[in-house]
Amino acid sequence: MEQRVSFITLAVAEVARSREFYVDGLGWHPEVFVPGEVLMIRVGEKLVLSLWSQEGFEAEVGPIRRGEGIPPITLAHNVATEAEVDEILDLAASIGGDPVVAAETREWGGYTGYFADPDGFRWEIATNPGEIGRLVLP
Amino acid sequence: MEQRVSFITLAVAEVARSREFYVDGLGWHPEVFVPGEVLMIRVGEKLVLSLWSQEGFEAEVGPIRRGEGIPPITLAHNVATEAEVDEILDLAASIGGDPVVAAETREWGGYTGYFADPDGFRWEIATNPGEIGRLVLP
Repeated sequence: MEQRVSFITLAVAEVARSREFYVDGLGWHPEVFVPGEVLMIRVGEKLVLSLWSQEGFEAEVGPIRRGEGIPPITLAHNVATEAEVDEILDLAASIGGDPVVAAETREWGGYTGYFADPDGFRWEIATNPGEIGRLVLP
Repeated sequence: MEQRVSFITLAVAEVARSREFYVDGLGWHPEVFVPGEVLMIRVGEKLVLSLWSQEGFEAEVGPIRRGEGIPPITLAHNVATEAEVDEILDLAASIGGDPVVAAETREWGGYTGYFADPDGFRWEIATNPGEIGRLVLP
């Protein structure tokens, strides 16, 4: 099996609300949109982010863990400068990202902060001065 | 903000167990490995999968949702043929993927099945004959 991810699928409570955040808010372009069912957005050359209604997700994949706390996953968006990190966190706050956690310098040398999408999925906005950080930049 | 994912981070209970599954089992190449802390694997040209210890994740990101049920996310690995889907699901079963859910033809025309990694994260192995499916193939 090749080490390759093609789709990242997140189960969401309301696809329309996800569209408001990602398309109307962040200004992202929908590749596929089926109201009430799924919103797909390209997030890499051969990579798609799929926001799938919880009902559809659970019917195919199985019952989701519910309750307090955050989902055990983050998606990181890396940029070249600390100023860009701050700008994106400000943008997220302006479109209702909640919570938005201000960036700070991490012990490994990066500068990162977080925002949550409407379903609580955390996006990390990051600079990473290490080799692996350079590897992911466009 | 560009529509781009750089890292996918999953919170895992035991990094050593994740390494056994992904590196020893699937044969993937670790890009970064810090025992007890983190395992990073390239899963795209500018994309890294990071398996981060729950302790580290929670200290930085916050308390994780716990309890019954599966994490509200899947990662899909798309291939060109149904035979490849079945081969990969067999491989996952042979290295302890549990559960492994046999592939079936979906109403949208694809053929997909699932396996779980040691922390219950679901991987979907898929063929997708649609336009968006061709977009993600190598």
